[in-house]
Amino acid sequence: MSFTLADCRVAVVGLGLIGASLCADLTRLKVCREVRGVSRSSSTVARGIAEGIIDQGTTSLQTGVQGVDIVILASPVRIAIGQLERIAGHLKEGAIVADVGSTSVEVVKAMERMPTHVQPIATHPMAGKETSGFDSAERGLFDNATWILTPLERTSSRTVDVFRELVEAVGAHPLMMEPHKHDRVVAAISHVPFLLSSALVGSVVRAGEQDPEVWECAAGGFRDTSRVAASEAGMFIDILMTNRENVHHQLDRFIEGIRELRSMLVERREDELVARLSSNRDARLAWYAAWMERNRPEI
Amino acid sequence: MSFTLADCRVAVVGLGLIGASLCADLTRLKVCREVRGVSRSSSTVARGIAEGIIDQGTTSLQTGVQGVDIVILASPVRIAIGQLERIAGHLKEGAIVADVGSTSVEVVKAMERMPTHVQPIATHPMAGKETSGFDSAERGLFDNATWILTPLERTSSRTVDVFRELVEAVGAHPLMMEPHKHDRVVAAISHVPFLLSSALVGSVVRAGEQDPEVWECAAGGFRDTSRVAASEAGMFIDILMTNRENVHHQLDRFIEGIRELRSMLVERREDELVARLSSNRDARLAWYAAWMERNRPEI
Repeated sequence: MSFTLADCRVAVVGLGLIGASLCADLTRLKVCREVRGVSRSSSTVARGIAEGIIDQGTTSLQTGVQGVDIVILASPVRIAIGQLERIAGHLKEGAIVADVGSTSVEVVKAMERMPTHVQPIATHPMAGKETSGFDSAERGLFDNATWILTPLERTSSRTVDVFRELVEAVGAHPLMMEPHKHDRVVAAISHVPFLLSSALVGSVVRAGEQDPEVWECAAGGFRDTSRVAASEAGMFIDILMTNRENVHHQLDRFIEGIRELRSMLVERREDELVARLSSNRDARLAWYAAWMERNRPEI
Repeated sequence: MSFTLADCRVAVVGLGLIGASLCADLTRLKVCREVRGVSRSSSTVARGIAEGIIDQGTTSLQTGVQGVDIVILASPVRIAIGQLERIAGHLKEGAIVADVGSTSVEVVKAMERMPTHVQPIATHPMAGKETSGFDSAERGLFDNATWILTPLERTSSRTVDVFRELVEAVGAHPLMMEPHKHDRVVAAISHVPFLLSSALVGSVVRAGEQDPEVWECAAGGFRDTSRVAASEAGMFIDILMTNRENVHHQLDRFIEGIRELRSMLVERREDELVARLSSNRDARLAWYAAWMERNRPEI
């Protein structure tokens, strides 16, 4: 089989933040021949068509994936894993099956069980917001984002190339990574931040029992530190439960660090505290400078 | 003595983020008769004059406060506490002395020791950024911000009224609060978020030793959760050391909460985990909706 991305029919399963944003860009940028949307909700399908972000749509998973060249599962991780099995018998020879989920090891395991005539690849765009659903979708969501590609041993280089082309077409930067490393990395920069952000809100709720003024006084610092705590629990529980060991390990690192800061404060080890805060500050400044550089609009 | 705010000479001591932003608004909005800037750095004073945010300036603390009606100390907390003593003998009868620091109890204690002919009041605008210094200053920084006023027993109602007028003139909303409550509140919504943000960066640094890709993959979630970790350690150490017990107490609440989330995850108590994450999410959504409502531009 030989085709270019421009010849491909693409089905996106799940029209939430990531799925609908991806459809919008694929359609708007004319990346492929056809964009098909699959959603449990017929009204979401209707809106996708009305807003012109999908060429056609269906509420039937099996119908949706039939005859397409690329299937992209944009459902919560454990649902996507279940869908891999459900679509297996309905895919055409050589079809590429990708996910866009936040964990990789469990997805790759499920992909390994797929029939040999399909081409699975795990992928993960590092783009998102604390909001979810079709209404949160936006054009250009993937602009300058890192998009991690995790091919299986059986994934052909052609499949990697086609998906890389798709990623670049929507403005993202592909980065190859093996699944265990992927899951460790996202535990550190996404899953643990979510948990501590949520725990922060919980601690302010407790403070608010004595001092309800906390809510009136909370400003930009709290707003940003707590932002990801607004993420949907139903989506995040899938992420956490499919990345339990890495999150556990990285969370222990975090707890160790915060307990060290606490000891320095309580024991008035002021110089040590300043040194640790400064070194963390330097690391954040260095990362932010590099991140801003990558995200600078091209001239 | 009777005067209105418009008749007042105001000296702002410390031309960093808060001090210079305040000068800029006082001048631009013609809130008072004269805005005097005091900075250790003669070049900062010169820039303040050149940029028109102060009417005059000096590097001498004593000269700066002489003859003014309102002194606003915008130095790091422990420096401001030292300055209260240094300016005491140079203030005119009835002069109002305010700070804009992030902790209140220690400041109020020092203010209680001031000579009886001056009118001290502790204050704290809930506005800030992770950057500091003159270059970070911006117009409108206090727009819609909550600005906490903590009068002492000896503070006259006239002093409170004058400062309230100043706060409202720069667009902020005054909120009266006693010092112990103030310090508990800011521990919860500002000082603990800073520490956990810093500890998060530290945990990513450790993850990066094995997986340097963490830095390339970190995106919006990490950016926001780690933002306040970029705050200057020298400024924050003053805040932490003057609010040690409240931060300690509130940090223990946070650590308890994050350890509970950890247990639920490790022990696969999935329903409990979803319930807790959802309840924290609801609290954050409710706060954010109210905060956005307060910060909506007036029509």
